[in-house]
Amino acid sequence: MVNSTNITWHHSTITKEDRHLLNGHKSCVLWFTGLSGSGKSTIANAIDHALHQHKCNSYVLDGDNVRHGLNKDLSFKKEDRQENIRRIGEVAKLFVDSGQIVSTAFISPYRTDRDMVRKMFAENEFIEVFVHCPLDVCEMRDPKGLYEKARNGEIHEFTGISSPYESPVQPEITIQTNEMSIDQSVEKILTFLKDKKILV
Amino acid sequence: MVNSTNITWHHSTITKEDRHLLNGHKSCVLWFTGLSGSGKSTIANAIDHALHQHKCNSYVLDGDNVRHGLNKDLSFKKEDRQENIRRIGEVAKLFVDSGQIVSTAFISPYRTDRDMVRKMFAENEFIEVFVHCPLDVCEMRDPKGLYEKARNGEIHEFTGISSPYESPVQPEITIQTNEMSIDQSVEKILTFLKDKKILV
Repeated sequence: MVNSTNITWHHSTITKEDRHLLNGHKSCVLWFTGLSGSGKSTIANAIDHALHQHKCNSYVLDGDNVRHGLNKDLSFKKEDRQENIRRIGEVAKLFVDSGQIVSTAFISPYRTDRDMVRKMFAENEFIEVFVHCPLDVCEMRDPKGLYEKARNGEIHEFTGISSPYESPVQPEITIQTNEMSIDQSVEKILTFLKDKKILV
Repeated sequence: MVNSTNITWHHSTITKEDRHLLNGHKSCVLWFTGLSGSGKSTIANAIDHALHQHKCNSYVLDGDNVRHGLNKDLSFKKEDRQENIRRIGEVAKLFVDSGQIVSTAFISPYRTDRDMVRKMFAENEFIEVFVHCPLDVCEMRDPKGLYEKARNGEIHEFTGISSPYESPVQPEITIQTNEMSIDQSVEKILTFLKDKKILV
């Protein structure tokens, strides 16, 4: 009932738990981290596909939809990289609050940045997925030709070549893409999600 | 199939249309705009509640979850206000891409800012909802005591008092909260969404 001097509204606001009930699963972020060419986007899209087939509400945040949109004002300088990760963390948090399983596929090379994001979430909501692949294998794959440019000096501060990658110390999940198939990787992540009762 | 030199993955990436099929409805942004105290958050949460009851995937972006998170680095200066709206638009776009009906509840006083966001979306995806309520009524409601502070000079550049509010010229929907009940407002929006085949 609205009148001219106040608004009162007695329906409750929809909560994250309400959305979990509607969707039939809990929500979380699968935070993929690893070198360029390690397979982050590939695995993130594969798990998103599998979750969709399970009728789960899921989504992928990656360079394609974030770098040219929300974060298009940011450079690759260290402070802008940190802001890039902070914003992705905050957006992931909104997606988790909305009840979705969101996968993020960004190199996110610094431990402190990833830990900053972890702190935004409740326990079991932030799942760090280390996409582990030796540098020489990533460089051999070089899907976007970036390693070649980095070696030629055309790209400065390239992770793994001229800028550090800090491996996760205790990631929830490790995927070795030079040893496991995509299907095996997806299976490992699905098993984790079931073990944690995120999926039923 | 993964080997050490390349990754090939033959599953298709999940599209917005795939998500619409899973959810049983299309996605869009309901962009609520209006003075402080006009009832934007109230109506946005009421439509979100109604959509949830219809088993739709929906979410609300408002000051509570955006200002203290993603946009906590922004002030209320004009250029920061524009960046505030840009980011909200970009996040709304991600939500729409993920298949959800997202409501945004921000004053968004400038026509150029709202039009900048409109341009990010396909036709029928951006629905401007003008929450229309006379200034004197909003000021009488003053739910957060902000008008009083603005009149006292404690808040500078307050929309409607010391900073302009530019009304939408052709909003898709107008809600007059001093004349319509919350239920009537929700009904008007639901009818619009059905007419546009966003809801079936």
